[in-house]
Amino acid sequence: MADLQTLLAECAATVDKTMDLLLPKPDDAEALLFEAMRYSCTAGGKRLRPFLVMQSAALFRVDKRCAARVASAVEFMHTYSLIHDDLPAMDNADTRRGRPSCHKQFDEATAILAGDALQALAFEVLAAPETHADPAVRIELVRELSQAAGGHGMCGGQMIDLLAERDGEMNIGAITRLQRLKTGEMFAFSSVAGAILGKGSYRSYMALHNFAQEFGLAFQIADDLLDVEGDPEKTGKPVGQDAAAGKATFVSILGAERARAQAHLLIDQAVHALEVFDEAADPLREAARYVVDRTN
Amino acid sequence: MADLQTLLAECAATVDKTMDLLLPKPDDAEALLFEAMRYSCTAGGKRLRPFLVMQSAALFRVDKRCAARVASAVEFMHTYSLIHDDLPAMDNADTRRGRPSCHKQFDEATAILAGDALQALAFEVLAAPETHADPAVRIELVRELSQAAGGHGMCGGQMIDLLAERDGEMNIGAITRLQRLKTGEMFAFSSVAGAILGKGSYRSYMALHNFAQEFGLAFQIADDLLDVEGDPEKTGKPVGQDAAAGKATFVSILGAERARAQAHLLIDQAVHALEVFDEAADPLREAARYVVDRTN
Repeated sequence: MADLQTLLAECAATVDKTMDLLLPKPDDAEALLFEAMRYSCTAGGKRLRPFLVMQSAALFRVDKRCAARVASAVEFMHTYSLIHDDLPAMDNADTRRGRPSCHKQFDEATAILAGDALQALAFEVLAAPETHADPAVRIELVRELSQAAGGHGMCGGQMIDLLAERDGEMNIGAITRLQRLKTGEMFAFSSVAGAILGKGSYRSYMALHNFAQEFGLAFQIADDLLDVEGDPEKTGKPVGQDAAAGKATFVSILGAERARAQAHLLIDQAVHALEVFDEAADPLREAARYVVDRTN
Repeated sequence: MADLQTLLAECAATVDKTMDLLLPKPDDAEALLFEAMRYSCTAGGKRLRPFLVMQSAALFRVDKRCAARVASAVEFMHTYSLIHDDLPAMDNADTRRGRPSCHKQFDEATAILAGDALQALAFEVLAAPETHADPAVRIELVRELSQAAGGHGMCGGQMIDLLAERDGEMNIGAITRLQRLKTGEMFAFSSVAGAILGKGSYRSYMALHNFAQEFGLAFQIADDLLDVEGDPEKTGKPVGQDAAAGKATFVSILGAERARAQAHLLIDQAVHALEVFDEAADPLREAARYVVDRTN
């Protein structure tokens, strides 16, 4: 296989191009809304969720254009959650990926609406015939994404996160559940999307689902470690934000060494879950190893 | 047909019961999110959009339980838009239907998340097999609702509304477009939902679509008139809020008399659009007349 960084960059280029085609063009009275949507969608980032979609789709030889639409829908959903999480009432973040956050670049009302419209756009993209000829496949994608994004998924996880910051009491079970909801469900959707698009077997669907569960938690532990040990020049974030906010994390509870060991154990399990696939799944295996060793 | 108020009350009872079944129960760490979702969904209201769904579905003899699910999805979407519109950064409304608005009863972060999760829930409900056995029907519902709610629909309309309040320059064409997006698209979805569920002819679909276009504008003009002439005891809102906010409305531009005449003309056109249907469409015709003559 090609080098992982090359694959990630290729995927990001494909998905960025697809998102550009799917995002509305600013032209009418509501142009400001579309500008805000585009501003946040073009802020860069590793496009890790789109990568999972494209790679899981490749396992089933899904048409790349179809996969890129689903990858774009996931990234629209992810971007909407970042815009809303950054709002003053939530995490109150002035910057995101080194640029002003959406509500700082525009204003709060526009940022709320841009997030709302991006969520609607994600479903609109999945529902369109261009995403897959079979409506049963499209509705399955809508169903899984809506569950991953809603009260029993991303929104529920963000609610627990906010409540935890207020009272600060969290044990390792509670944090695991929080992260499975907040970020894990969207990783899981991204990983199984290929099996849905390619009408894969139940066995391959479950393999990708289990992969994503472990992958997501390892990703989060690595994130917590970077907050403690990362190089601010590479992460683009000051060190120790979680601790300063009094936030319980995998690292604050387990300590850095045990957290790191746990992350590597999870990645071994994630890779193990992929054993039903041949070397076509190597980019997913590589991505899993990269996620815990990354420096940004 | 039964008296319109009886039909409206019956519809509200059916849909309230269905929404109760569909909303998540507050039990886990994220209970507060579900409480906020339920709080705003049970605030009452005329349930006009659900009524349009139930009545258009009845024209095609759609199973009532299926129709009630779609009606609930529309009301979840409508409720999310009210929660977000009431936020301090948007219309900054402390009350809604005589009770504290969601962010006043809970807090801003919870209100943002409750709205986000209600939007996801609306799509989840449409996508579930219980809504219709045919996935092609369900994906069509998702497609139309996502378009009605997104940047070219409700969100786009709200953006124009916010910008118009800031610079105040609006002519009648601009207000018409604003309202077609902000409220019209959701009325249109509600009205055509029955034709989609019942696989009605293109002619009947278009009849309901045209009905909703006129209905929606007439509804908005009546709203503007109530702001000027309404009885605060009945509307639950102080008189003259739009004028105080310097907001251009149909009434501020046309004057009350011409606006009233315009609303009645629109309703005549709405009723005319329904001529392809027999007396089964009488409740829709009655609802159209009620909407311009209502006092709350």
